[in-house]
Order: sequence, then structure tokens, then C-alpha cells
Amino acid sequence: MLSKIYEPIQEDLVKVVDSLKRVSKADFSWLSEMLDYSLGGRGKRIRPALTLLSGKFYNYNLDYLQPMATAVELMHTATLVHDDAIDKSRVRRGRPTINSMWGEEKAVLLGDYLFAKAGEFATNTQNLQVVRLFTQTLGTISSGELSQTFSAFNLKQSREDYLQRISRKTASLFSLATESGAILSQAPEKSIQVLKDYGCNLGIAFQIVDDILDFVGTEEEMGKPVGSDLAQGTLTLPAILLLERYPEDNPVRKLFRNEDKQKNIALAIELVRDSSIVEKCYTVTADYCAKACRNLNLLPDNDSRRALIELAEYIAKRKR
Amino acid sequence: MLSKIYEPIQEDLVKVVDSLKRVSKADFSWLSEMLDYSLGGRGKRIRPALTLLSGKFYNYNLDYLQPMATAVELMHTATLVHDDAIDKSRVRRGRPTINSMWGEEKAVLLGDYLFAKAGEFATNTQNLQVVRLFTQTLGTISSGELSQTFSAFNLKQSREDYLQRISRKTASLFSLATESGAILSQAPEKSIQVLKDYGCNLGIAFQIVDDILDFVGTEEEMGKPVGSDLAQGTLTLPAILLLERYPEDNPVRKLFRNEDKQKNIALAIELVRDSSIVEKCYTVTADYCAKACRNLNLLPDNDSRRALIELAEYIAKRKR
Repeated sequence: MLSKIYEPIQEDLVKVVDSLKRVSKADFSWLSEMLDYSLGGRGKRIRPALTLLSGKFYNYNLDYLQPMATAVELMHTATLVHDDAIDKSRVRRGRPTINSMWGEEKAVLLGDYLFAKAGEFATNTQNLQVVRLFTQTLGTISSGELSQTFSAFNLKQSREDYLQRISRKTASLFSLATESGAILSQAPEKSIQVLKDYGCNLGIAFQIVDDILDFVGTEEEMGKPVGSDLAQGTLTLPAILLLERYPEDNPVRKLFRNEDKQKNIALAIELVRDSSIVEKCYTVTADYCAKACRNLNLLPDNDSRRALIELAEYIAKRKR
Repeated sequence: MLSKIYEPIQEDLVKVVDSLKRVSKADFSWLSEMLDYSLGGRGKRIRPALTLLSGKFYNYNLDYLQPMATAVELMHTATLVHDDAIDKSRVRRGRPTINSMWGEEKAVLLGDYLFAKAGEFATNTQNLQVVRLFTQTLGTISSGELSQTFSAFNLKQSREDYLQRISRKTASLFSLATESGAILSQAPEKSIQVLKDYGCNLGIAFQIVDDILDFVGTEEEMGKPVGSDLAQGTLTLPAILLLERYPEDNPVRKLFRNEDKQKNIALAIELVRDSSIVEKCYTVTADYCAKACRNLNLLPDNDSRRALIELAEYIAKRKR
């Protein structure tokens, strides 16, 4: 399904994956092994695909787009490595995490190394504006992640708080991916804005689906345990809606007071699955996907524009 | 003592500290508080001073040098925050560490945020070559730190291994500080190389003294516990010399086999202090400081050149 959507840039996406493979060829065998493992997972490569697709409307130049797409994927990987180390997660995409293989200390340092490599690839675009966006995005993501840890196990979070947080921690990288693709292909200002907005809204939608799947997915589909957000004390949209529906006697409320953790997670998942909350969340997702696409008609009509629309449709409904 | 050496750039160093203070003014109060705390310690500001001093030989332009000096100090702070989180250190520069104040999770994310800000300041130099060096240096430091964790509690490490490791984890940032100062002041190629070499050798000397002080310093002078390298299983020059002197019955050997940790750390410290090992280490330091200065006469003769020489003398003998 995704490979069909990626068709306009499939060949070049393979080149990005090759760049990632070259990153693994480090000076030290222990480093190569860790890099190889961290970059070799079965990721969807959505972010680098977005950079390439966004570069297809004006002067598509792979000399700049390939390093940027690589930088975006490396930054994404680095944040995952740090997230897993922080959350002490054991499994990701169906494989043991870096921290469970090598320990948290080495995971933190590997993440730093990946950030550095990401930055180096960003400089290969020869475009200071893009490098600057890159560094600002890393700041936004980190502050979004920090905000998540500061609000852990806090019940007083509105939908607005949630949306702000996922805009920072997830959507900012999607929007870097699309905006940089636009800038590097010398898109006019207006088109840059259209693609940036697309990335931002798509990123929000993507994260909401991620948060739905943490309730309704299976461990097999997800490649990681279900209910991990609640276990970490992270309040996501389904949990917020569940709290709105049952303001008093609510398993999330109990769980956040540290009562019967496992039991209340299971109960919350059951209640969400058996209600219209999932459907409501998918409606919010669909809204963001529609919002993402609303101005795409301002871009030249081509395969990539159709791919961006299909990608939004895919994300609105994705099950994994 | 240091403030005397910093005289040629003292006023501008104050501006760098002001830049750091502005970094603390973040969008969220919890973030500002963490930043304020992490950037407000009593650091020696050697790295930003090096950037400014290295910029004094040709076209000194604070518009570029100030952001770079700020970037270098931010990167240094970020690595300390991550190091402390990884080592679970409780005290640094006489104050509780970020991880002991806010927990390891938030420390890792704050470090990421500081890396991002450092990168953003680096882009303010408007010089892609310098930004590129910046990202490469971060990669070198991370791989140096990783190499240290991979070689922890390993007795089979030569002096050469040690020097390679500290070149990566410490000297690379010193050399970024001086090289970038040179580049941003449009120094000719030959002078860039002189200043880069100075930074590299000075950084090695600086780290060796750090490693000596972990044996012979007091907790009060150091602002952190003595013997922490051995406790982490890090083999530094004094320990390597101690192993050479007593190849068989040696407390480091026992300690690395996990026998009587506290007793053997105390014994190793005692043996190092009561021997000529400390003196030998200071001789190695002095050699690197001399090496650092050997080509400075190729630079224009000015206050800053004298300051670089004095700084090397200071570092060769520093007790804290």
C-alpha cells in the first residue's frame, strides 16, 4: 500500500536507504553494529518520503533532497532511540530496543551520535536556512517530549494541551520534512507554506492514529506492547475522551493515582474499544488529513500531489 | 587567575554569558528553570574564551564569534548533562546535577534541547563550513563517549587507547572552539591549522589534568566526588601508570573484577598519591601544553597570543 503511494519517488527513496546504510559504516565495529541495528528496522520511511515528494513540484534536485531526506530519517531514529531509553521500552517495531540490547547509557550516546549525523547530512544541503530549520525542529521536538514528561500522570490536560504537545513532538518533524523539500526545490513562498501546513496537519493526524492504536491495536500489528502510553502516564486523545465520558468513576483516574496499574490499563482499553471513542478519534484524524490536503490544489498537478493526497488517506485509516 | 588571562576578551565573554542567559528565557517556565539551572553553574568558560581569543588575530567580528562561542558552551553543557545522566552522578561543580534534581529522563531531553540550541547558535555564524564542523564534532564526542562505555572495566587498554579516547571526547571540542574562531575571523589556512592544533593539544592536556584531579583533588576543590572514574570503570592515565607499576597485585585490577569496590578505589587513590605517578602525569600534560604552543609564533604577536600561552601554562598546572 505505502509502496504504491511512494511510486513517484520509490527509486530515490531506495537511495536514501542506501545513505542510511552508509552511515552504519563507522570507524568502530561496535558503533557500526549499533547503527546497523538502529537504522535497519522495518520503518515506514514516511518522513524521508515526504521530503522527496515535497521536492517534486519545482526544481527536483536529488543532490540536496537526498541528504535532507536522510537527515530527517536520522533525526527521527535518534528521537526514537532516546524515547525508548527514557521510557525503558523493551520492544519497538517487533524488535528489542537499543536500550534493551545495549543498555540505556549506550542508547543515549547512540542517539546523540545519530543527531550529529543527522545534522551533518542537513549541512550537505548547502542551505543554511534549511539547517537552521533543522536545529529549531530538534529544539521543538525535545521541548515537546519534555512537556510530555512534565505532564505525566496529570489529569488536568485539555484536548488543546494534547494537540499542542503532539504538534511539537511529532508534527514539527513532518513539517520540517515537507518544508525543507519545498525550500530545496526552490518552491515559491506560497507553495512552501502549503507544503509546510500539509506536513504539520498530517503529523498531527499521524500521532492521533498512533495514540488510537495504543488502545485498539494488537501487539503483533504494533510491534510494541499495547497500553504503553497509559503505563507511562501519557494522556492521549482516547484517554481524554474517556475521562470526558466518565468524569467520576474512571480507570484512567485511578491509574493516574497509582491504583491497580495493570487492571486499570486493561479496563481503560476495554472501555475505549467498546465505545464510540475510537470512531470519534478517527473523525478528528480525518479532519486533520482533510485540513492537510485543503490547499494542495495550489501546487502544480502531478503524481506527487496525488501521492500526498493518498498518503493522507492512508494515514487517516492506518491500522499499524 | 583565569580572569587575568581572559583580559583581551573579558568584555565579550560577558556578552556570551548574556547570550546563554537569553537561552534560558524559554516558552515554558519549567523549561526556563531547567535551562537557568544547567547554564548558571560556575564553569570556567574555557571553550567560549578559546573561540573569542582565536578570533583575535585577523578580522575579529563579534556578530559571528559570539554565537559560535555560545554554541560551543551550549554543546559542552549538553554533553555534561548527558554524561551525568548516564553515570547517575549526583554532584557537579558543587551543585546537584540535573538528573538528581529532575530525574534522568528529563536530563536526557534537556541535553537534546541544549544540543538543538547549540546547533541553532552555530547557524547564526552564517558559515556552513563551521556548522558542518560543529555537527562532525558532536559525532566525534558521542563516539568517544560511547567508546568509553564500551571499554569500561577493561584492563587491556594502552596509553594510546586512552589518548585516542580523550582526543575524541574532550579535545575535539577544544579544537572546534579554536578552529571556528580562526575560520570566522578569516584567518589564512596556515593560521587555522595552528589554532586547531593548539586547541587539540590543549584539550588533551586539560583532560589529563581532569583525570589526575580525580585521584589527587579534594571533593571541595573538584565540586564532585573523588575516584569517580574508577567507580565508573574508566581507565585513565594515572590508573594505567599504576597498572604498569604493579602489574600483578593491583587494586585497579581487583576493582575491575568487582572485588571490594570502595576499598580498592581508596587503595588505588592512596597508591597514586604516594607515588611519582602524579608527577609523571603532569609531565605528560606539560608536554601537550608545550606542543599546543609550539607554533603560536606563526600567528601575529598580540595580547591574545600571550593569553593562549598563559592559558596553556594555567592548564598544565591547574588544581581544579
